[in-house]
Amino acid sequence: MKFIKHLKSQKIKAMANFKTLKEQACEANLEIQRQKLAIFTFGNASAIDRAAGVVAIKPSGVPYSELRPQDMVLVDLDNKVLEGSKRPSSDTKTHTLLYRHFPNIGGVCHTHSTYAVAWAQAIRAIPNFGTTHADHLAPAVPVTEVMSDEMILGDYELETGQQILNVFREKNLSPDEVEMVLVACHGPFTWGKDAAKAVYNAAVLEELAKMAYLTLQINPLAAPIKQTLIDKHYFRKHGANAYYGQSGDY
Amino acid sequence: MKFIKHLKSQKIKAMANFKTLKEQACEANLEIQRQKLAIFTFGNASAIDRAAGVVAIKPSGVPYSELRPQDMVLVDLDNKVLEGSKRPSSDTKTHTLLYRHFPNIGGVCHTHSTYAVAWAQAIRAIPNFGTTHADHLAPAVPVTEVMSDEMILGDYELETGQQILNVFREKNLSPDEVEMVLVACHGPFTWGKDAAKAVYNAAVLEELAKMAYLTLQINPLAAPIKQTLIDKHYFRKHGANAYYGQSGDY
Amino acid sequence: MKFIKHLKSQKIKAMANFKTLKEQACEANLEIQRQKLAIFTFGNASAIDRAAGVVAIKPSGVPYSELRPQDMVLVDLDNKVLEGSKRPSSDTKTHTLLYRHFPNIGGVCHTHSTYAVAWAQAIRAIPNFGTTHADHLAPAVPVTEVMSDEMILGDYELETGQQILNVFREKNLSPDEVEMVLVACHGPFTWGKDAAKAVYNAAVLEELAKMAYLTLQINPLAAPIKQTLIDKHYFRKHGANAYYGQSGDY
Amino acid sequence: MKFIKHLKSQKIKAMANFKTLKEQACEANLEIQRQKLAIFTFGNASAIDRAAGVVAIKPSGVPYSELRPQDMVLVDLDNKVLEGSKRPSSDTKTHTLLYRHFPNIGGVCHTHSTYAVAWAQAIRAIPNFGTTHADHLAPAVPVTEVMSDEMILGDYELETGQQILNVFREKNLSPDEVEMVLVACHGPFTWGKDAAKAVYNAAVLEELAKMAYLTLQINPLAAPIKQTLIDKHYFRKHGANAYYGQSGDY
Repeated sequence: MKFIKHLKSQKIKAMANFKTLKEQACEANLEIQRQKLAIFTFGNASAIDRAAGVVAIKPSGVPYSELRPQDMVLVDLDNKVLEGSKRPSSDTKTHTLLYRHFPNIGGVCHTHSTYAVAWAQAIRAIPNFGTTHADHLAPAVPVTEVMSDEMILGDYELETGQQILNVFREKNLSPDEVEMVLVACHGPFTWGKDAAKAVYNAAVLEELAKMAYLTLQINPLAAPIKQTLIDKHYFRKHGANAYYGQSGDY
Repeated sequence: MKFIKHLKSQKIKAMANFKTLKEQACEANLEIQRQKLAIFTFGNASAIDRAAGVVAIKPSGVPYSELRPQDMVLVDLDNKVLEGSKRPSSDTKTHTLLYRHFPNIGGVCHTHSTYAVAWAQAIRAIPNFGTTHADHLAPAVPVTEVMSDEMILGDYELETGQQILNVFREKNLSPDEVEMVLVACHGPFTWGKDAAKAVYNAAVLEELAKMAYLTLQINPLAAPIKQTLIDKHYFRKHGANAYYGQSGDY
Repeated sequence: MKFIKHLKSQKIKAMANFKTLKEQACEANLEIQRQKLAIFTFGNASAIDRAAGVVAIKPSGVPYSELRPQDMVLVDLDNKVLEGSKRPSSDTKTHTLLYRHFPNIGGVCHTHSTYAVAWAQAIRAIPNFGTTHADHLAPAVPVTEVMSDEMILGDYELETGQQILNVFREKNLSPDEVEMVLVACHGPFTWGKDAAKAVYNAAVLEELAKMAYLTLQINPLAAPIKQTLIDKHYFRKHGANAYYGQSGDY
Repeated sequence: MKFIKHLKSQKIKAMANFKTLKEQACEANLEIQRQKLAIFTFGNASAIDRAAGVVAIKPSGVPYSELRPQDMVLVDLDNKVLEGSKRPSSDTKTHTLLYRHFPNIGGVCHTHSTYAVAWAQAIRAIPNFGTTHADHLAPAVPVTEVMSDEMILGDYELETGQQILNVFREKNLSPDEVEMVLVACHGPFTWGKDAAKAVYNAAVLEELAKMAYLTLQINPLAAPIKQTLIDKHYFRKHGANAYYGQSGDY
């Protein structure tokens, strides 16, 4: 009797948690559209409950206008569907790989925002041309290698995530400091402490992508800003000596 | 008596069908404006009832803000007006030619969307630079030849459709797989299983046109993506092994 | 007694007419903002009552959000203020010069729309690259010469109009067929049968300017379209054999 | 007793003034977002009460959607916080330096608007290509030097203001005539007789930056307009002989 009560209370607690998780994931997906980072059903966002190992992710191909929290699909970190009547996003394996390897992130976002996609299609990292960029990350926004045929014909979405891990390893980048990447010939993935921050980063990336594009059009010889200025702006907003914003800010 | 009743019921049924057809055509036209694919009266969309051989199309030169289902003009596949007090779109002959030669399509859309028109005016096919493109079609978005003076001075709108058929024949393209084309010096035509899909494709084309434009500005030497990646993305969304979206999705 | 009644009735009729004229001018000015053709107080539109020789024009420097029909200033063709507590637009002399020399026009519009201004600042006529352009005018959108110092230091706004007349004379253009022009280093002026058509033309011009800009970015060697296609599209919409639109359309 | 009453009345008067000051500063900050001059929390505006030597400025890192007049932070010209539970904008020292050295200005605005940032990142002054520019300022929009490492590692935000003073001194510009500047690798600062005018100038600058960018894309050899035309337009709107707008206009 006591045990049953215990189970019940556990289950209610679990459901309650996932209700919030699904709301956060849904809200993040709706923000993709509000920020105009994708048209129609393009793009997706997810949120993770680290304690439970449960991810709430957008169902595949559902328009943003119809999206409700209860439509979110719950999957575990091995991509097994735990709950949900719809198929999860076709990019689910990329999300879960990032969650497995980037232990501090709480949300992932993938969009097809226009300027970020253009840089990804041009297979060019986005140089750090100014303080708007340096306020968010110190190095260039990295771009992955083009996938080999073997990877494409293999477990494609998993390999997409693998390409992201590879470029972070090769360039010695920390996913806690660089929360955005361009997948070559595809588009941006971003992440953060929660799903809202992941979408925030997607919007910032789109703005950085547009600014860098225009900078090069105005001055094709524009050079990245000096390291002292990068450090100044990055550490003005991040780390122990930050003095931008109120406590608890992004 | 019985025969008259039969005729009456047939007629009522027919009118009911065309009511839906006109609503679908009107809604598709309104979506052109909502998606910002044309200003003022530019652009037009139509829907076909294949069983009846009847096309509902936008009246010529009427602003989108005033458009109601009952304003749609009904024409047959020989461009004869069956119903409607207004003149049908001046592009009607292009629509009906496409319906006659592309047997599986249920809707056609023509816009003057800015970036797609720019590629058409540049007389350049839009290269497949990334997965946003490959999600929708495998090859470049084709562009027709410039029309000869004989064609322009002849049955112009019919010849516009003929130019579309020509480029599909020359490049061995299937209208069931490639649902969009650029008419040189003019603009885009798109189609699909219904009028809504035709306008959806017009919006996707505009986005692809903008992304490809920006890609070439960032990297003038950008190359189309590899065939394996094209196939992966195209068949992720299309055909028997598709796994994107829910069943019944675009 | 009878004579006084006559005068009264004349006056009431006149006031009624100008009420409509002021409403048309105000509505045209508000449409400048709705079409996003100018920010803040930039731009202005006017309407003329040809029989009375009276022009209703925007007051100078008043934000669109505050504009009401009763704020319109009435001037005659010699720029004398007939009615209105506010100063008329500083461009009034350009408007009235156009009204004096282009006898068939009923409205004039001047904006600082972004792409049209860019072509004016580049001192380049906008080539006719496609049917969107040919639907509205056959030749390139003309651009005036840069003004001499004498003209600038003289009656500047009158000379602005004079520059427009000059380019129309030199290129043998008809203001009834070409309803738009770029004033070098300044921006666009457009006109039409009424004030609404003048603003419509300003919006079309901005779209043509953007399309032509993008066309040249995609293909720097893009050439104007052939004369047969220009004629086809222009006469599809204009003149005795037009078959675009419903009767009475733009 | 009388003295206490006097103090009370002084205090009430002071609070009343600052209520207006905080409302003006808040309204200016909200206008940054309405004019789409910054995303999220980027950008900030302030207003000064010259008699009291008190500046009301946006709190750091607070989203525009949540901003209320009572959130404004009051600081003196030495950057000491006088009132407010939140940390003032991290750019406060730049604002106060400008207030100290530009004695006639009543408001300061800093944005990250896209095109102005692109010019700042390209480290290029914005040439005066046309009358839209000349209506607001005669010379090019100046751009500062890149800061030395010593300045960056020193009192960074103060040095940002110092760079602005330097470029005005070197180019012999008056802050009463040129109300905008680009800080190299960073973005625009603008000012004016009050906070509303400062934000107005930020919106004008963004438009000038976009127009100049497009002008150079269309004609890479475009040259600044002639001095007579600059003077004509500038003095049409400014100074004793201005005849644009109504009295009291911007």
